Amino acid sequence: MTDNIILHDKRFLTRALQLAWKGRFTTMPNPNVGCVIVRNNKIIGEGYHIRAGEAHAEIHALRIAGNLAQGATAYITLEPCSHYGRTPPCTTALINAGIKRVVVAMLDPHFYARGRGLHVLQQAGIEVQHSLMLPEAESINRGFLKRIRTGFPWVKLKLAASLDGRTAMSSGESKWITSIQARQDVQRFRAESDVILSTAGTVLADDPKLNVRWACFSDKMKRIYSNNQIRQPLRVIIDSTNRVLPTHRIIRYEGKILLVRLKKDHRNWPSSVEQLLLSSINCHGHHRINLTELMQHLGYREINNIWVEAGATFSGVLLDIGLVDELILYQAIKFLGSDARPLCLLPNIKCLNDIKSFKLLDIKNVGPDLRLRLIPKSM
Amino acid sequence: MTDNIILHDKRFLTRALQLAWKGRFTTMPNPNVGCVIVRNNKIIGEGYHIRAGEAHAEIHALRIAGNLAQGATAYITLEPCSHYGRTPPCTTALINAGIKRVVVAMLDPHFYARGRGLHVLQQAGIEVQHSLMLPEAESINRGFLKRIRTGFPWVKLKLAASLDGRTAMSSGESKWITSIQARQDVQRFRAESDVILSTAGTVLADDPKLNVRWACFSDKMKRIYSNNQIRQPLRVIIDSTNRVLPTHRIIRYEGKILLVRLKKDHRNWPSSVEQLLLSSINCHGHHRINLTELMQHLGYREINNIWVEAGATFSGVLLDIGLVDELILYQAIKFLGSDARPLCLLPNIKCLNDIKSFKLLDIKNVGPDLRLRLIPKSM
Repeated sequence: MTDNIILHDKRFLTRALQLAWKGRFTTMPNPNVGCVIVRNNKIIGEGYHIRAGEAHAEIHALRIAGNLAQGATAYITLEPCSHYGRTPPCTTALINAGIKRVVVAMLDPHFYARGRGLHVLQQAGIEVQHSLMLPEAESINRGFLKRIRTGFPWVKLKLAASLDGRTAMSSGESKWITSIQARQDVQRFRAESDVILSTAGTVLADDPKLNVRWACFSDKMKRIYSNNQIRQPLRVIIDSTNRVLPTHRIIRYEGKILLVRLKKDHRNWPSSVEQLLLSSINCHGHHRINLTELMQHLGYREINNIWVEAGATFSGVLLDIGLVDELILYQAIKFLGSDARPLCLLPNIKCLNDIKSFKLLDIKNVGPDLRLRLIPKSM
Repeated sequence: MTDNIILHDKRFLTRALQLAWKGRFTTMPNPNVGCVIVRNNKIIGEGYHIRAGEAHAEIHALRIAGNLAQGATAYITLEPCSHYGRTPPCTTALINAGIKRVVVAMLDPHFYARGRGLHVLQQAGIEVQHSLMLPEAESINRGFLKRIRTGFPWVKLKLAASLDGRTAMSSGESKWITSIQARQDVQRFRAESDVILSTAGTVLADDPKLNVRWACFSDKMKRIYSNNQIRQPLRVIIDSTNRVLPTHRIIRYEGKILLVRLKKDHRNWPSSVEQLLLSSINCHGHHRINLTELMQHLGYREINNIWVEAGATFSGVLLDIGLVDELILYQAIKFLGSDARPLCLLPNIKCLNDIKSFKLLDIKNVGPDLRLRLIPKSM
């Protein structure tokens, strides 16, 4: 194949990836998928998957293309389904529409489906090609792909600190460490997640709502996404000693809550609150809830993406036991001084061999602050 | 003047600024200056100031231009001198060469010279223009300009830490926190400085040489600058209790040393070592050397640029008393944990009103590490 055709294909796949990304606030537990139908070098139809149970990306794009789809090429970010799920198979729709060639950015990650959709298309005489722009396709569905492959959700840990690694004065005084722009950015990350994970410690200290507030989005985000395109993630609170009460704001405001506990209490909880009982494990002499079990449980509930906002202790535990897939670190261009509180407790780092190393994915100015996206390196 | 002429002038001044920057390892105590002579849109001569006592940039450029300089335009990063210093006035040379127009990026900062050079040229019928690209011209001579304007040198403080603001394990174990590329970068900053400032604490802890090692430069730097274009900065060591000994490596290796003390000792010091006596001041109950007096003294010695490499205590004191003009922070993409040593002691930060804020000049990847250049914000 010539370089020109590859460039051509990449151009349309890039568009399909952009479309797929638009669904990131609503597709869960499904993946983000985009599709572009091209005939004579022109886009004649495009679409993306919006909500589970509703039409897949291919169907939206084929509807727009109509009869023009006959003999056209379909660019899809993920291999089309060939089974009856909540909707009929997309392979049938592509074949019936007379599509001549199908280019997919990546194969279906389900072990029982991988390559099957393309095989069905090939059997129908359609020319197929796959794994073009694979890294880009992986990057728009990290959570979905991790869950399908391992059963575990993708866990993003948010930390915010000064350049000298501090979050608050020793007195606890901490208002306005990071900027309003950083807080808007956090709203977007929350909205992209299926779960916001925190702890009873944070609930008791700050009494937060931990919800998505459309009104707090940046103006740019508000122009692109209306309020009803955003949904509230499930809030999961680690509460091993039953300290969260029905009077806390997180309980009183709208939205589902999962209290993760060692035993239930029989307070008068609203119907939006569920108490999940998990086992505890002994960790360096003290008991804590088995977080690996929690992640497996959330994976089983088809949770793809978890956003963690918690204190220095819980953040440290998650990093320590290797449950963090991505670290989002906001840095305020300030020094709070060596008496201030550390961003993350890591008491098990005793020597240089124990230190945590990261791969820097990117760094960005967010208002006056910096935002680093980091992937922990395995030892 | 039309936009076209301004663009045209900026192009040649940019070249002159690039040339000026080449002198940064050798011009001290003089400023970095570059000059480009242009006739019919073509550069017919260019040069930069290399060493105090040797020819100024204008003279180098005029020599290359020769008779072609007649009727040409001279672009100079700094107003030409009109007085007899260590060399004859450049204004005379420009007039004698028949230069028709002179564009300077900034005026001479000396109160007695400001505008005088241009006035002399104007009197000779030369068209003059100034303050084009002033911010760029300021940025290549920060140290020189600060000293001329205030008597104080420009102080750059180097810090290196992990993303959680730590420098070493609590045991002191600290090898390889930052990368070889970061250490090469430090060599370049040292070479650009007139003084490397450190403390007896650092000398006793690490026994460093604190010199410029051409062999440790990056390959790119080695290709541009030969070993003999690099000079050794004066090393200034704060030693209030006379702990530095003639046996320390910093004393035994070639290069001048200034031991800053409260009283002299009569050990057998090599001739490269000078003991400077300064007063002490009472600071929150304990005595330390008057650092403001030290900076004034170094300014008096025509020191433009100071590079500080010291421990968390001294770095904290410098920041605390406002003697830092620029902070160079290397960040290793690692967490050393909350038990590890802090990058900077700032015991006087008691509440959020006391915190140090910075303006971020730039951020750069240096090998696997990040380098932030920061300017402290005054309160």
